[in-house]
Amino acid sequence: MMALRVALAQVNCTVGDLAGNSDIVLARTAEAAAAGAHLVTFPEMMLTGYPVEDLVLRPTFRAASRDALEKLAGALAEAGLGEIAVVVGYIDDDGLPRDASAFLLGGRVVARAFKHHLPNYGVFDERRYFAPGTSLAVVRHLGVDIALTVCEDVWQEGGPFTVAGVAGVGLVVNINASPYERNKDDVRLRLLQRRAAEAGAPIAYVNTVGGQDELVFDGDSMVIAPDGTQVMRAPQFVEGVFTVDVPVQPAAAAPVEVTGEELTVARVATAAAPLPLTAAGPGAVAPRLRDEAEVWSALVTGLRDYVRKNGFRTVVLGMSGGIDSAVVAAIAAEAIGGANVYGVSMPSAYSSDHSRSDASDLARRLGATLHEVPIGRIVDEFVTDLSLTGVAEENVQARVRGTLLMALSNSDGHLVLATGNKSELAVGYTTIYDAGSIGGFSPLKDVPKTLVWALARWRNEAAAAAGETLPIPPNSITKPPSAELRPGQLDSDSLPDYELLDAVLARYVDGDRGVAQIIADGFDPELVQRVARLVDAAEWKRRQYPPGTKISFKAFGRDRRLPITNRWRETG
Amino acid sequence: MMALRVALAQVNCTVGDLAGNSDIVLARTAEAAAAGAHLVTFPEMMLTGYPVEDLVLRPTFRAASRDALEKLAGALAEAGLGEIAVVVGYIDDDGLPRDASAFLLGGRVVARAFKHHLPNYGVFDERRYFAPGTSLAVVRHLGVDIALTVCEDVWQEGGPFTVAGVAGVGLVVNINASPYERNKDDVRLRLLQRRAAEAGAPIAYVNTVGGQDELVFDGDSMVIAPDGTQVMRAPQFVEGVFTVDVPVQPAAAAPVEVTGEELTVARVATAAAPLPLTAAGPGAVAPRLRDEAEVWSALVTGLRDYVRKNGFRTVVLGMSGGIDSAVVAAIAAEAIGGANVYGVSMPSAYSSDHSRSDASDLARRLGATLHEVPIGRIVDEFVTDLSLTGVAEENVQARVRGTLLMALSNSDGHLVLATGNKSELAVGYTTIYDAGSIGGFSPLKDVPKTLVWALARWRNEAAAAAGETLPIPPNSITKPPSAELRPGQLDSDSLPDYELLDAVLARYVDGDRGVAQIIADGFDPELVQRVARLVDAAEWKRRQYPPGTKISFKAFGRDRRLPITNRWRETG
Repeated sequence: MMALRVALAQVNCTVGDLAGNSDIVLARTAEAAAAGAHLVTFPEMMLTGYPVEDLVLRPTFRAASRDALEKLAGALAEAGLGEIAVVVGYIDDDGLPRDASAFLLGGRVVARAFKHHLPNYGVFDERRYFAPGTSLAVVRHLGVDIALTVCEDVWQEGGPFTVAGVAGVGLVVNINASPYERNKDDVRLRLLQRRAAEAGAPIAYVNTVGGQDELVFDGDSMVIAPDGTQVMRAPQFVEGVFTVDVPVQPAAAAPVEVTGEELTVARVATAAAPLPLTAAGPGAVAPRLRDEAEVWSALVTGLRDYVRKNGFRTVVLGMSGGIDSAVVAAIAAEAIGGANVYGVSMPSAYSSDHSRSDASDLARRLGATLHEVPIGRIVDEFVTDLSLTGVAEENVQARVRGTLLMALSNSDGHLVLATGNKSELAVGYTTIYDAGSIGGFSPLKDVPKTLVWALARWRNEAAAAAGETLPIPPNSITKPPSAELRPGQLDSDSLPDYELLDAVLARYVDGDRGVAQIIADGFDPELVQRVARLVDAAEWKRRQYPPGTKISFKAFGRDRRLPITNRWRETG
Repeated sequence: MMALRVALAQVNCTVGDLAGNSDIVLARTAEAAAAGAHLVTFPEMMLTGYPVEDLVLRPTFRAASRDALEKLAGALAEAGLGEIAVVVGYIDDDGLPRDASAFLLGGRVVARAFKHHLPNYGVFDERRYFAPGTSLAVVRHLGVDIALTVCEDVWQEGGPFTVAGVAGVGLVVNINASPYERNKDDVRLRLLQRRAAEAGAPIAYVNTVGGQDELVFDGDSMVIAPDGTQVMRAPQFVEGVFTVDVPVQPAAAAPVEVTGEELTVARVATAAAPLPLTAAGPGAVAPRLRDEAEVWSALVTGLRDYVRKNGFRTVVLGMSGGIDSAVVAAIAAEAIGGANVYGVSMPSAYSSDHSRSDASDLARRLGATLHEVPIGRIVDEFVTDLSLTGVAEENVQARVRGTLLMALSNSDGHLVLATGNKSELAVGYTTIYDAGSIGGFSPLKDVPKTLVWALARWRNEAAAAAGETLPIPPNSITKPPSAELRPGQLDSDSLPDYELLDAVLARYVDGDRGVAQIIADGFDPELVQRVARLVDAAEWKRRQYPPGTKISFKAFGRDRRLPITNRWRETG
């Protein structure tokens, strides 16, 4: 066999920053070349970032992407990087918009490939933007037939990998912008093993890393042999160039004719002489992160990149002493440094003593700044002027806190973080425009309450194991949750136990299961119907919620699109 | 020729209300039968409402839709309506979810047809939900071959209408849920004329009427002859059953064999004897509304149905004396009655005298209730506690007003209306969470400022012509717009002239034109670049805006999907 030295550039690009993204390709290609790689591959839509959404509809943007590719090819050659093959994602336009992969060598675009399977489910709207590719590009380079595929092509039966198998290629390069969600890494591995077997060739799978609005990309780039072996696997959430010698079959002298398949085959050859036969050494297979560590990394990465890529340096949030704001603050401290985290304790008449002491304990642990702004007098003005009572009085307290945080953002340029979690957003147990739901970003938007606690415990255990200060006040983890908007109020007055609530929500929201099906799973019929009604009635609040990192199979936002006006009520 | 008496049921169904929607079908079918109709047709997804979005993904919902159809067929026969053919839209599931049309007769589902062309652009995500139909259903009934098609099938070249032409049908029924946008009625007419010519048969086109979240449906149902003549056309935004005798060719004794076309033909026949030959009289062609009247009707319908279908009876809004709140209040008064409209004047230290007198003039004209709640003391508490100055001080005033309105909503159960317009939302000239941007519904979200004025002038002129009280205070129309957040502030301090701004926005937002293209249209380069930058930077505010009625080609919301994190900056 031959061994092709392949570098997977698991990098973090930024939507719309074509020049900056091209610079990343140049720098990382130099790194790959220095490591002796024959080929370096970058993720899907490397030059444009992903997803660019309706920017695709703008002809000027598509033209800029094509221009950036041509310039990059030239710049690579000028930088003395003309001999290493570079596979890179971008947006093409050959009369129709295309999600494309290019093979660059010697200052030229040698081949272009267009994504065949266009996902149009979950967070993806690619049938809105792109026309599907109808051929498989195969480049003969260094004596190896290299097929180019894009992302979703791995996720569907049939198509490029089947055709690659018929065509008898030596390697399939698959470039990705595949968003993180829990347990997805296991699914990816099994899919790639199946596709590598279909193609009868190793797959070099590269994925981007970093955050873009509600999506975060975990990397998890890998090379999978046709027998399913993990030849190499990169760590999650880590930027870098990961290089390995991949055993590949040399190309047959006469290319196989392919007819009657779903795609035609477009072959092109470079002038490079074949590689000598050699033995390849094994690559490194990074261990997977355990669930809490993986979610934590996703949340830190998502927040860090939202802050950084939008030009912020500091964040502000309400610190109530509760578990949600403690976890948000700890994530923020890890993402951008505790010194850049500003907390505000905003006690009212109904705030407990521990709400203030736990908030100040939190700030001390993280090295964050804490301000205290009592809200009693402001609330009194509202309550008196409007003669408010009951829920109206409770909610004014909550919204005064939101207004205070926005004012501090206006004064000091902080990004405001919303502290609400997925469970309360699901059932609408939240005051719209309060400190839990206003601002620019909501780190826990897709994190159910039980997972918030699990993350807090895991994070403190990890700190203890490392001999570090526990970032989260133990009292915030153990005390019963309360909104503290009336005397002695507890979440459990209004909501079922969170273990039970989250179990129902996982089925109704994430699983799209009907009420009757959930009851058949063994849950109390009245409880299930009540939760479903609460979820349906809170849709209007969710529409106005700030974006937050998706970590689940189905996050609120583009992933789950439901009408506000909706009389559908499921019964058991 | 034969004449088939066709009734177009232009009705208002509600998303998720399968029982209520079925009742509408029963009542309107009885009306059509009483008018002697041979066939009555209801809109697309009549039984489920449209769009139901991700409800399609729930198996229980799809099953409920199928059940509702079977029950409806039986209920029609039981009600003595078994002899009139009923065409009705619903969601089917034959292993794959389908956007479907059914032909009901004699208590049975005689035929089912599945939408072939699935729109996946603009506000539509139908490739997310449905599998396309691959055959054309043709029902031979009363001696006429009647083809069943759904909505988008009219908008695309080729497919069902071409096949209907080859098959030699006598009538094509096309059921729709086609959202209103400005100038769309002209486009529809031309499309239908083209398709009727392709099919060589008249088209009975029925569209729904009413509001659903951000969409409003204008009806505009019509029958178009193969020579392009408007046989009948229903008025816009009016519910009703519109009946006409349609001249149709009788079916040939031996059906034409259709092969080699994009769709197969699925033929079925009822037992009904052919109609006698007869002459058909001409139907009524309702005149089109002029632009302002049409937009006004759309806004009234959209708000009315949001209020009604979500179980509200009253609305509350900030009445500043300005043009935006005046127009919102006038729309609301027309939608639900002036007595159900509650205005709040919330003067601060910087409010002009006319802000209060114009607000009270407005309330008097509409028969609305006005409260005055000065905000000075509340604002002072915020400003003092946080030592606010500049924009932070300005914005606190705005957000205190938002908080006051939400408190009144909590106390009294009003739906809060946001008063912001499309121009300010486009450039971010709005304080997030203020009275212009909070609440449940934002009637002017898709209305540019220049159109707000035009609507106000048109509405007052219409009232004057009818000898009625002018609903909008003339001073609110003529005075220069101001947010009144600092002494002497005017919109023109911060923004270009609205005529110019709206012209640039129409190109950049609605037209997806690049900056260079807009400059080439003759606009000042610096202005265009500044506006484009403002639009891009305000994306985060738009994400948290309440829903509002779409009236333009491209509304903010699902119609225009752009990243928040986005470094793409177009230059000239």
